[in-house]
Amino acid sequence: AVLATELRCQCPRTISRIDFKTIQSLKVTPPGPHCTQTEVIATLKDGQEVCLDPEAPLVRKIIQKILNKGKAN
Amino acid sequence: AVLATELRCQCPRTISRIDFKTIQSLKVTPPGPHCTQTEVIATLKDGQEVCLDPEAPLVRKIIQKILNKGKAN
Repeated sequence: AVLATELRCQCPRTISRIDFKTIQSLKVTPPGPHCTQTEVIATLKDGQEVCLDPEAPLVRKIIQKILNKGKAN
Repeated sequence: AVLATELRCQCPRTISRIDFKTIQSLKVTPPGPHCTQTEVIATLKDGQEVCLDPEAPLVRKIIQKILNKGKAN
């Protein structure tokens, strides 16, 4: 298996608000040897990547919303 | 921007239990034109990828746990 994992934190700064509809996917990385912080990176529909604040209530709500969406189908 | 997005569902089947400690990162994709289901794909520390059930209580707990870990630091 190829382990192409970055060896340091990926998010120098984070934002705490984002429009749910612009999100293509979210990547959540728990703390580890590479970085002591949880990192949440959103890939947007236009290909841009933004770092979200994992502690921000809105970010948590967005994740809940995405998880609940599967249910609606 | 390069949009290397898959055009169909990535998870033919999902599992509902996983050991939190084996997870390297999680990718959460909301439903879209490519797939009507929310997909949660875990990349494990050994490089393997597994699909998790977004509705499974344990999977939701793991995501909460990862988000809360940032707080502890």
